[in-house]
Amino acid sequence: MSMVLVTFGQELANFRRAVVVSPAIGETTVTFSISAPDAKLVRLYGSWMASATSSVNMLQDTAGVWSVSVAKPAAEIYTYNFIIDGLSVNDPNNVIMQRDGTRYLSVLLVPGDKTANYFEAKQRGNLEKVWYDSPTIGKNRRMFVYTPYGYNSSTQKYPVLYLLHGGGGDEDAWSTMGRACQILDNLIEKGLAVPMICVMPNGNPTQEAAKTMMLPETTMDRTNPAAANMYINSIVKDIIPYVEKNYRVIADADHRAVSGLSMGGGHTLSVTNEYPGTFSYILPLSMGISATANQADYDAKFQAVKSAGYKLYWIGVGSSDFVWESAKTLDASLTRNGLQHTFFVTEGGHTWANWRVYLNTFAPLLFK
Amino acid sequence: MSMVLVTFGQELANFRRAVVVSPAIGETTVTFSISAPDAKLVRLYGSWMASATSSVNMLQDTAGVWSVSVAKPAAEIYTYNFIIDGLSVNDPNNVIMQRDGTRYLSVLLVPGDKTANYFEAKQRGNLEKVWYDSPTIGKNRRMFVYTPYGYNSSTQKYPVLYLLHGGGGDEDAWSTMGRACQILDNLIEKGLAVPMICVMPNGNPTQEAAKTMMLPETTMDRTNPAAANMYINSIVKDIIPYVEKNYRVIADADHRAVSGLSMGGGHTLSVTNEYPGTFSYILPLSMGISATANQADYDAKFQAVKSAGYKLYWIGVGSSDFVWESAKTLDASLTRNGLQHTFFVTEGGHTWANWRVYLNTFAPLLFK
Repeated sequence: MSMVLVTFGQELANFRRAVVVSPAIGETTVTFSISAPDAKLVRLYGSWMASATSSVNMLQDTAGVWSVSVAKPAAEIYTYNFIIDGLSVNDPNNVIMQRDGTRYLSVLLVPGDKTANYFEAKQRGNLEKVWYDSPTIGKNRRMFVYTPYGYNSSTQKYPVLYLLHGGGGDEDAWSTMGRACQILDNLIEKGLAVPMICVMPNGNPTQEAAKTMMLPETTMDRTNPAAANMYINSIVKDIIPYVEKNYRVIADADHRAVSGLSMGGGHTLSVTNEYPGTFSYILPLSMGISATANQADYDAKFQAVKSAGYKLYWIGVGSSDFVWESAKTLDASLTRNGLQHTFFVTEGGHTWANWRVYLNTFAPLLFK
Repeated sequence: MSMVLVTFGQELANFRRAVVVSPAIGETTVTFSISAPDAKLVRLYGSWMASATSSVNMLQDTAGVWSVSVAKPAAEIYTYNFIIDGLSVNDPNNVIMQRDGTRYLSVLLVPGDKTANYFEAKQRGNLEKVWYDSPTIGKNRRMFVYTPYGYNSSTQKYPVLYLLHGGGGDEDAWSTMGRACQILDNLIEKGLAVPMICVMPNGNPTQEAAKTMMLPETTMDRTNPAAANMYINSIVKDIIPYVEKNYRVIADADHRAVSGLSMGGGHTLSVTNEYPGTFSYILPLSMGISATANQADYDAKFQAVKSAGYKLYWIGVGSSDFVWESAKTLDASLTRNGLQHTFFVTEGGHTWANWRVYLNTFAPLLFK
């Protein structure tokens, strides 16, 4: 057995598997292919299509490879799958896969102006998977911490963005589906955003970490307000102190921002309302206030936020998001209480396409 | 739209999808299930089976869910897939998935003595995805760096294990398929291994990082010895200096170990032969010396390694590995040259099952 065979055996195996190239992004089309010699009907569904019923038929060649070319959709990150005789499967020839909660999906990243900051920058920050003790929740827990390019070789102190995920997500979501590292890298490299640390905790107090770590989970009575506030409290009592002890951080409100999407937008509202004066930058995304909520209670809390002072209050939401009415209620409540703020409205709904745009839009506004 | 619906909408969607539980590990059996109402024949193949032809038929219930219970295999990490009317698919209800090069596979982790150190320890080290400049290769590249539990809160300096992947792998392989963080966490927590930093670089000089980062790759003429040695040189000239500048490290040979599997075992041999006296712990895994190689050349290099001095030379290999003969040639060559060493032989072949065992076995021997 020669060294050459030993070394390259697995690479040759990978090469043989890779004969089907999918997806293949061309000038005006994208071609998807999958080998399924025994299939009767293979269809393609992509998240750029209007609905699941918009899926398109694929055609089989003599080798059993099914293919279809579709018009290249606008620059964006999409997910897609094949439907083989009624069964949804991912693309076995596409190494770009993302996990959304418990579900894995094949990814199509179409290049263009809108997605320029979603690709790797030249100057890249590091991403650390950090275990920290949370006495408030009673668990050793995991968060992801992004440090900007140059952090290791500098002695400077940095501001911190706390970036929170939504329901069904975990500490992994913003750095994968959200492309947070790439967006911050690109904005910082272009001089559009100031170098900052970005902390991405796990917002499910039942978990120590993402389900992929196979750790036991606890149950929690969500109707118990103490339980519901546990995570909010842990941000202020456990996470911020850990970050300010272990990273070179400017440890004051004017150098702390908090943003989150959906459930994490609710966490953003709660943590800033319960701890006014802790964060000078407050950015709830795709979240609002229920019309049936106690408005007087919100009024009192927003008055406290106003008294404590802040630099930026920025709401991002899509006009077809199912939280649209709630977001308008939040906007009106801030206005009624005299809190200067930005109500940033895009097209579209409750999607990562929008949350990436919001991060890319608001990061340049922070810490200036 | 109420806050509650906003917050829990995605979680409810996940709950509905999760009605099929697979795999379900029982006392003596493991049950696998998948919903495929339109399928004609569904089979299960697991890596614990003798061969692909050992796959077993699954049975369909009235709701279209196919299931099979198999005798629980011995404690180990396995991969498996379903074969639905001839098509291989992963388990959509199993969130534990691993990537082997370009291929994703569903994972079954059977608890037991052998796998005890593959689960999360109580005291967990962090894992950082680090970008560093490699002037030797001419790229900004990514490596993973594990720091042991307590690193952040201590002022002590640590020894470093450089842990190299095989052909088809990348910087992600040891921390995912290899369970390197869990193994080191558990050994350190139990007092069996000394706290150490573990550096996992990318051994493909054509790449800046794993293919999942979507970065351009270069081509390389592997027959050009200068190109072939580029990665070896970058370990000594770029990676070690970066690590010793940016981490609290004991920067001498007695506190440097290098180990690697397959292609990474070749890298281990090359970097220790080309730079004798740099590493005091030398641990090639599932690798050896071709019978057709220039033995006189190896003799000269091993004499230089012996002269420079080392603390441990440790070869791990499986007796049914296709490199078995080469490993025996390496063993004989070390003996002929008077290099004291351990030839650690297990059952089995060129598999992660063995590489995890080797790490779990040799880590307690390092830096003592």
